[in-house]
Formats: sequence, C-alpha cells, structure tokens
Amino acid sequence: MSDYKAPIRDIKFVMYELMGFEEHYQTMPNGEDASQDVVEAILEESAKFCENVLAPLNSVGDEQGCTWNDGVVTTPDGFKAAYEQFVEAGWPSMTHHTEYGGQGLPESLGTVLSEMTGTSNWAWCMYPGLSHGAMKTLELHGTEEQKSTYLTKLVEGAWTGTMCLTEAHCGTDLGMLRTKAEQNEDGSYSISGTKIFISAGEHDLAENIVHIVLARLPGAPEGTKGISLFIVPKFLPSDDGSVGERNQVACGSLEEKMGIHGNATCVMNFDGAKGYLIGPPNKGLNCMFTFMNTARLGTALQGLAHAELGYQKSLAYAKDRIQMRALSGVKNPDGPADPIICHPDVRRMLLTQKAFAEGGRMLIYFLAKQVDIESHAQNEADKAAASDMLALLTPIAKAFLTETGFESANLAVQCFGGHGYIREWGAEQNVRDARISMLYEGTTGIQALDLLGRKVLMSQGEVLRKFTKVIHKFCEANKDNAAISEFVEPLAQLNKEWGDVTMHIGLAAMENPEEVGAASVDYLMYSGYITLAYFWAQAALVASANLESSEKDYYASKIKTARFYYQRLLPRTQSLVTTMKSGAANLLDLTLEEF
Amino acid sequence: MSDYKAPIRDIKFVMYELMGFEEHYQTMPNGEDASQDVVEAILEESAKFCENVLAPLNSVGDEQGCTWNDGVVTTPDGFKAAYEQFVEAGWPSMTHHTEYGGQGLPESLGTVLSEMTGTSNWAWCMYPGLSHGAMKTLELHGTEEQKSTYLTKLVEGAWTGTMCLTEAHCGTDLGMLRTKAEQNEDGSYSISGTKIFISAGEHDLAENIVHIVLARLPGAPEGTKGISLFIVPKFLPSDDGSVGERNQVACGSLEEKMGIHGNATCVMNFDGAKGYLIGPPNKGLNCMFTFMNTARLGTALQGLAHAELGYQKSLAYAKDRIQMRALSGVKNPDGPADPIICHPDVRRMLLTQKAFAEGGRMLIYFLAKQVDIESHAQNEADKAAASDMLALLTPIAKAFLTETGFESANLAVQCFGGHGYIREWGAEQNVRDARISMLYEGTTGIQALDLLGRKVLMSQGEVLRKFTKVIHKFCEANKDNAAISEFVEPLAQLNKEWGDVTMHIGLAAMENPEEVGAASVDYLMYSGYITLAYFWAQAALVASANLESSEKDYYASKIKTARFYYQRLLPRTQSLVTTMKSGAANLLDLTLEEF
Repeated sequence: MSDYKAPIRDIKFVMYELMGFEEHYQTMPNGEDASQDVVEAILEESAKFCENVLAPLNSVGDEQGCTWNDGVVTTPDGFKAAYEQFVEAGWPSMTHHTEYGGQGLPESLGTVLSEMTGTSNWAWCMYPGLSHGAMKTLELHGTEEQKSTYLTKLVEGAWTGTMCLTEAHCGTDLGMLRTKAEQNEDGSYSISGTKIFISAGEHDLAENIVHIVLARLPGAPEGTKGISLFIVPKFLPSDDGSVGERNQVACGSLEEKMGIHGNATCVMNFDGAKGYLIGPPNKGLNCMFTFMNTARLGTALQGLAHAELGYQKSLAYAKDRIQMRALSGVKNPDGPADPIICHPDVRRMLLTQKAFAEGGRMLIYFLAKQVDIESHAQNEADKAAASDMLALLTPIAKAFLTETGFESANLAVQCFGGHGYIREWGAEQNVRDARISMLYEGTTGIQALDLLGRKVLMSQGEVLRKFTKVIHKFCEANKDNAAISEFVEPLAQLNKEWGDVTMHIGLAAMENPEEVGAASVDYLMYSGYITLAYFWAQAALVASANLESSEKDYYASKIKTARFYYQRLLPRTQSLVTTMKSGAANLLDLTLEEF
Repeated sequence: MSDYKAPIRDIKFVMYELMGFEEHYQTMPNGEDASQDVVEAILEESAKFCENVLAPLNSVGDEQGCTWNDGVVTTPDGFKAAYEQFVEAGWPSMTHHTEYGGQGLPESLGTVLSEMTGTSNWAWCMYPGLSHGAMKTLELHGTEEQKSTYLTKLVEGAWTGTMCLTEAHCGTDLGMLRTKAEQNEDGSYSISGTKIFISAGEHDLAENIVHIVLARLPGAPEGTKGISLFIVPKFLPSDDGSVGERNQVACGSLEEKMGIHGNATCVMNFDGAKGYLIGPPNKGLNCMFTFMNTARLGTALQGLAHAELGYQKSLAYAKDRIQMRALSGVKNPDGPADPIICHPDVRRMLLTQKAFAEGGRMLIYFLAKQVDIESHAQNEADKAAASDMLALLTPIAKAFLTETGFESANLAVQCFGGHGYIREWGAEQNVRDARISMLYEGTTGIQALDLLGRKVLMSQGEVLRKFTKVIHKFCEANKDNAAISEFVEPLAQLNKEWGDVTMHIGLAAMENPEEVGAASVDYLMYSGYITLAYFWAQAALVASANLESSEKDYYASKIKTARFYYQRLLPRTQSLVTTMKSGAANLLDLTLEEF
C-alpha cells in the first residue's frame, strides 16, 4: 500500500503559524529566495515526488532489499531511477553553499523536505541523507581543494557520501577503534581496517562514493584523543575532477537486518586505501561532534516519519474497517457493524500516533530553526542561545521521538488487528524500519547520558534553565488566557517540577556518579513529555485564536489533540518521576551471578 | 544463535516453592503419576529436547519460512524430523485422557512443558499447540465416535489440528462470518467458504489435519447465535480409521508475515468439504468459549517465552560485550573497557526483562493450576473459585504478558545496540515473533473489554473482589513481616486503590457505556501490574525465608528482582490511574474530519 500523502497543511501550520519561518527566513542569507510563495512551491513539488515516486518504492525496497555480488551492490528496482530524478530536480543542492553549486536555501527547509522523503521511503532517503552528513563535514573541516574536488560533486548529487565510524568491537566506544592511517610519501594516507554498519556504503545510485572515515595515525594517543578523520573515495578523482582509478576500499558483505532493507548496510574493507586527512590530526572526533547535532536531528526525524506514516495507514483502515457495534449504540445503521474508528480504544491508539507525529514535527522544526540561527544569525547572543537550545533538545528529540515513533508504529499495527502482522498493508514494515532509529546515531541510553550527564549536570543545570525560562515566560504570558488554561497550568507545574527533579538527581549523583546512568533514560523521556507539552500548548494558543476561521475544524482538531496529549500522554511523567528518583541501588545491588 | 537454556531451577521454584504443585498434584486424577521425581525427570527430558532439537531450528524456521506449491506446504528443514521425535517420545499425549491414548497427567504440566517448547521455538510449537486446541474442543464437545476417530489420532500425534475461525471481513466480530454448512443426505455437512489466518492449516508434519471450523447452517439466526462448529478433516478417515479420501479443503496461499515464519499461516478454501457437526447446532461459539481460556493462556505463555528468550540472549551479550567505562570507575582493569552489564541503564533493561519473565511464569503457572482445579477438583466450591480466578486473570495474563513480553523483547534488542538489529543474534527475530501475540486470540483491546466490561463490571465487581480478597489476606497475614514490608505495604495500598478505581469507572460507565472502552486498556495494564506485584511479593516471602540456605544467591536474586519490580515497574500504575480516569471525552470529541 503506497498511500502516503504529504501533510502540507500541517507542515505549513508548524512552519508559519507556530514557528514564524516567514520572518525567520528574511534574517537568513539568501532569505529573499525563501519567501513563503517560493517555499510553498518547493513543498508542493517535493510532495509530488515523494507521493508518486518514493512512496510506491517503499514496499519494493523492503521486499527486494539490496543484493551483493562480489563487492557490487545493487539497490532495489526503481531506486536508481528515483535518485536520478532527485538529482535532476536539484534536490541535493537545495541547502548547500552557492560557491560549491548549492542553492543556499536555509538548512531548516532541507529538514522539512527530509520529512517528506523520509516518511515516504526511509530506506531510500538514507542515501542522500548520508551524503548530507559527508557534505556537512567537508563544509566545516575540508580544505578548499577538498571542497572543490568532493563537495561540489556531492552537492550536485553525482557522488554520494558515507560516514564510517563503527567497527565490530566498538560502536558507542569509538576510543577503541583500530582502523589505521599511515602517511604516504605524497602526503596522502594509506587506510587499513574494517568498518561495519556503513549505511549506503556501496550501491549503484551514483558514480562515486566519498567515505568519511575515522582512523588512527601511528603513535596517536590512546582512546578518543587519537582519532583522525579522512576522506576515502571509492574512485580516486582524476585531475579533471572526474572518476579515476578504483581505490582499495570495497564492500565485503551486506548485513541481514530487521528492516530498512532498501538501504545497503555494508561491511567496508579498507585495504591500504588512499585517504586524505580532514581537519587536524587526532581531532577527528571533535570534527565529527560539530555536525553531530544535525545527524541526530535527522534520526529524530525518523521517529516523526514512522509515526506519521503509521498514522496515515491506520487512520485510513480504521475509517474503512467495520467490526462490532459501538458500546453506546449503532453508528453505521446501513452496515452490519460500525467502523472501528467509533471504538474509543481505537481512537486512543490513533490519537497517540497523531499527538506524537504532530508534536514531533513541532519540536523538529523548532530545532531546525535553531540550526539556521546557530549558523547564520547576525548576533552572537542569538547564536549562543540557539546552540544552547540545540545542546539540550537534540538528544531529547533523537531519543524521545524515536521511542515514541516506534510506539506509534506499533499502535498502527495494533489498529489493523491481525492484518497488521501481514506484509501487504505495510504497517509491519513500518515497525521494522522504525526499530533501528533507537539504536543508530547513539542509542536511547547514550542520548540520555548525553542529556543528563554532559548537558544538564555538567552545566550545573544552566542549559536546562535556559529552556525552562522560555517555558516559564510562555506560561506567565498566557496565565490569564482562559482558552488555554487547561494546558498552561499543568505545563507551569511540570516546568517547575523539572527543575526540582533535576536538582534531586544532581545531588544524588554527587554522592554516586552511577545515579546519572540509573536515572538517565527515565529523565530523558520525562523531559521529552514536557518538551512536547510546551509545543502542544503553543499550538493550542494559535488554534484557539482561529476557532472562528474558515478552517475551524482544522484548529479545533489541534485543541482536541492537545487535550488528548495533556490528559492521556503527559501523565506518564508521574511514573517517570517516581522511577527516576528510585535510585541506583535497585539496579546495582545484584551481583553478576544474581542475574 | 541457538542458546536457549531451559530455566529448570526457576520452573521448579514456581511449581514447588511458590505454587505447591507437589501437594496439588496429589489431589488430581493420576496424581500418583505426577510425583515430584517423575515430574523432574519429565522436565529434564523436555529441556534436552527443547535445547538440543527445537532451539537450533528457531532461526532456520525464520530464514526459510514455509513454502507453498500448488496447495502443498513444506515446513522448514528439520521441522518434520523434530515433530517425529516429539511424537515418538509421547509428548502430544501427556495431558490427555487415558481412554483416548493419553497419559492423563495434569494440564498444568503441559503448560510448563509448553513454556520450554515455546521459548525455544515458538513457530514450531504452534503446530502441536493448535492440535491441543482441537483436542480440547473434541474432548469437551465431541461424540464418542468423533473422539475415537479423531481424538485418538490427535493424542497420538499422528494427526494435527487447527481452529478455523477468522474470515477476511471478520476477526473479532465473528457474528459476521459467512462460511456455510449444508446438511448432506448421510447426515454430514458440506462446508463452503474461505478462512484466513489459519495457523498450521496445511503442512508436511503429519499425515492428516483435523480442522475445527465455524460455519453457518441454512436459516441460522444472524450474528453470533447462528454459528455452528464442524470437524473437517483434510483426508476423510477410512472405516479402519486410517487416512482415506482427500476432502475438498485446500490451502490457497500462505500469508507473508512479520515473523513466526516457520509456522504456516494459511488461507483455507472449503469447497463443499465434508464436515461433521460438533456440539449443538448454532451453539458453536459457546463451544469455542469453553476452552478459550486455555487458548488465551497459551498465548499469554508466548509473552513469557519472548521475555525469557530475549533475557537469556541479552544477558549473555551484556556480560560479554565490553564498551565504555563505568561512571564510578574501572570494573574490568584487564580490558580496554567494562562489560556493558556494569552500566546501570543496561541493568535496568535486563532487570525489566527478568522481572516480567519470572513474574509472568508465576502468573501463568498459577492459572495453569486453576485450570487443573476447575477440571478436576472434588469440591464444587473449589471449582467455582478456580473458574472465577480464571475469568478475571486470563484476559490480564493474555494481554499484559504479551505486551510486556514485546517490551522485553525490544529491550533485549536495545541491549545489543546496533547488533540487535542484525539477524544473526536472533534478538530481532524474537521481536518479530513476539509482535503477533498482542493480536491473535483477541487483541489487547479485546482482552481489556472482556476484563473490564464482561468480567468486572458485569459481575458488579464481584469477580474482582474475589481476587482482591486473596491479596488482602496475604497482606494481612504478612503485615508484621519486616523482611517483606517493602512489598506488602505498597501492595495493600494498590489493592485498595484497585477497588476504588474500578468503582470510579463503573459509575462513569453507568452514565456513558463508552467509558468502558475508553478506560479498558489502561485498566487492564494497571491490573496486570498489581497482579504481578502480588506474585512478586509471594516470591519475596518464600525467598526471605531462604536467605541463609545453600542457594542464598538464588533467593537474594528473587528479593532484589522483586525490589526492582516494585521500585521501577510498579510505579507505572500511577500514570495509568490518571489516564484511565481521564474520561472518554478526550477520545470521542473529535469528529471524523478532525482526525
């Protein structure tokens, strides 16, 4: 079932009515190119491509998967043609620098477009998605020569990129990585080692693949302080910039995975491959960290994508499928049973998906706006404020939205009953595809440690206070607005509680640092519920002012979904407060033998 | 990875130390055959078969799946040989009546053995599992002739059985089913229609398949009161009881599913197939309901199975995989990093699985004991008490244990990090296999309506009070036992709250029946947490008396796991109370257009 419809109305609601992108874009470089008219035309074009080209390939990708034959990887039928269309339309260049062939549009617009490509076909969208990561690295840390050689090709879409970090024995703990880089006489490096889980590591979509590889120089310090970053192209560029000699890097095999079968997850063997250092020696991890927020935001988007896709599928089914009569009496007298959307528990499952998808969109677009500001604001204070917001909210967005995206995808299956377990409806594929999102780009547990340990506690709560102040201001400004008091009052209470709980854990952690890890995931989820509550309150504020407009159903839906969120999802914070304050002892007291 | 180890120590803990199966079995018919020595020998034999034969076939079944060729279904390599071994060892006959070739051992022992077969290979265990359902139906409703013709063959294992209920347009709402049965001149019936989702509907394990089919007689009343039950064998029996002429029933296709690939999920076409009425005309659904508790208990077991299997896999990995240092300092000075089981969040994930698996075992074995009592107690009052307990706790066990089993299976994947998404470890298969359990045999939503609507509210709370009284007595009896006061006190509070919350919803439902559906799933999960809390408190009581024994680590682990359960999982009741009391309006107020 390829039934994705780009939620343009809702995308515009968040961009313009909630986040003020029209005015925001006027403050950006090339902002005059991103007027609302132009952006809407771009959205419509992208929607057509996603609905008509990418969405029908989603199940094809799942069924066929990628195939490996002696190092050559073939993507599923239609993937290559779709990529060619994507490149011809100029999509890869949208948000990149004009001096390297880009169109220079704001990064946040790229995020909005990625929502559509990702929701219609996540496995496909990872190919350009990984390129984006490689481009960002080159933009920030490449030399001019590296940019003109590689970045221009990537921006054009002629070549794609990868990020080669993980090795079999180390994923989270990159300090243990072993891939070696030894300098050649010509100043290049010879890279040797094996990387695993390399998404889009080898494929047939583009004529060349630019690997960004973490490796260790001879005599480099142990651990994370001895890692350097290299460009390792599949084909070495000729003097004229075209594809030249094959480099000594090859795909050894593809992983058999639970989902995202359309994307090639590769074991990559570097056998003395020629590479070029990017950034300073031994500072590779620092270079990676500078764009890691963007990469994590991309994965947060996956949570939204699966929540949205599952919602669309299960909503259509719930309106169509008739089964049993409503407990309060017949709703569909002309049929032998009522549509299952009449049943309150089915509505609970649909609204959970809707609240997470739409709330997730608000959080992600907000963060995308902060990325724009961090990169381009005129004012250093604005940049710093955006950076702080990203520091706090990016791990929340990545972990909370992927966890709730997976919950949503499962609820979509549940709405289908037994049919949800069958391939043809695509609901079970959505679950399998979603499952990776809580694992890669740092697991939920790693995001939670980053949030609570690195961000909140290491700043003595300062990074958190910057956000709770924003929420506090919102609550104060709206405390007399009776139309949204059902949201503002609990939000103000939770906002205060957030600080108190943080203090409680911080004090416990001073006694025993393991308290951080013991509380972290519950803390992250708790923070996520409050964060989304803030955005839902904002949505309710905007909607409440438009209930007499010509689109009153649309705005009424926003208020009712906010209400559902506050009454049915936000109370999960209550249990989380208890469990995160329960202390590390209930986890650590067991000896190894007692497990 | 075929690394299943039957948890014999824990099985015996629950059977003997917690549930008193030794004494219980002495009250059963043939109880003298079920002495602890004999039972332990049976457990050991079954463990060997499951560990050595079934477990290695689990991934084979997933990878190969079943294949269909012109109506002939071939099971994965090794499935047939395993089934032959199973039959030769006499396992199918274990708990069935001696007059039909059974060994007459207690039903609950069959449940214990099913835990092992199911955990080692759920897809395989469904073949004998479905036979068990067909046998139960024949035992309860078949004529003597039907029993001697079909039941003996099923008990022997020479034939297998199925349950044919679902049609494409009706699963939950069986009142809409259309399969027809018209009487032939010889008194048999001609069955026509298409059934879907028929597990084990066609395969190569046995020489014949006995389908138990729901169909409608001409002129039968509409809805559920016009459904009759039929035996439709794949091959009609000859006069000597052997396999005779092929009947007009055939497998039209296999479903492509998310998991349990080793089990054949069939579309079954009945084209005027010869069938025989079981039980009275138009009473087919009543006949099905009589054994539905057993069937649901079988699915509850699947929740336990996936929690246990995921726990075993992820525990082994967490002890072995080294990554990062513990926040409180180096634990593994000889290695470059610490085993991930040192990290509190990994422990949280492991202990969640452990608490659900072990708690689930307690609940299921308790219910299995009630099944024995309901069938065989001397005393009518004991039978009635067991029936009430089953009525209340079976929907809880089915839905709560499958939901928490799925949560556990996902946490196992999470412990593996990115490796959890890869086929070879089997953790992702465990998730895919687990996902069906919340759907078939009545979805979680249907179990919840059964619990809150049919059982609790229709009995005016009486069925619930019978169980809360048991918990109350336990709490009273142990209120001065300081060793377990950390469990008894919160349990007593929650037990009281359970009654209060039920009253609250009951009153709301008198105003608006939709309040039942709006609260039901949260109510079921809430009830499940309290139910498991009761069993964990019992386990803690037993363990607290054995902390000085030679197995003090084993018992200490029980106390600590109970503590984890009370401090980290049971608080989820707090949020559930709030959400289930939030009322139906937040679900029902949206118009169809507002979704």
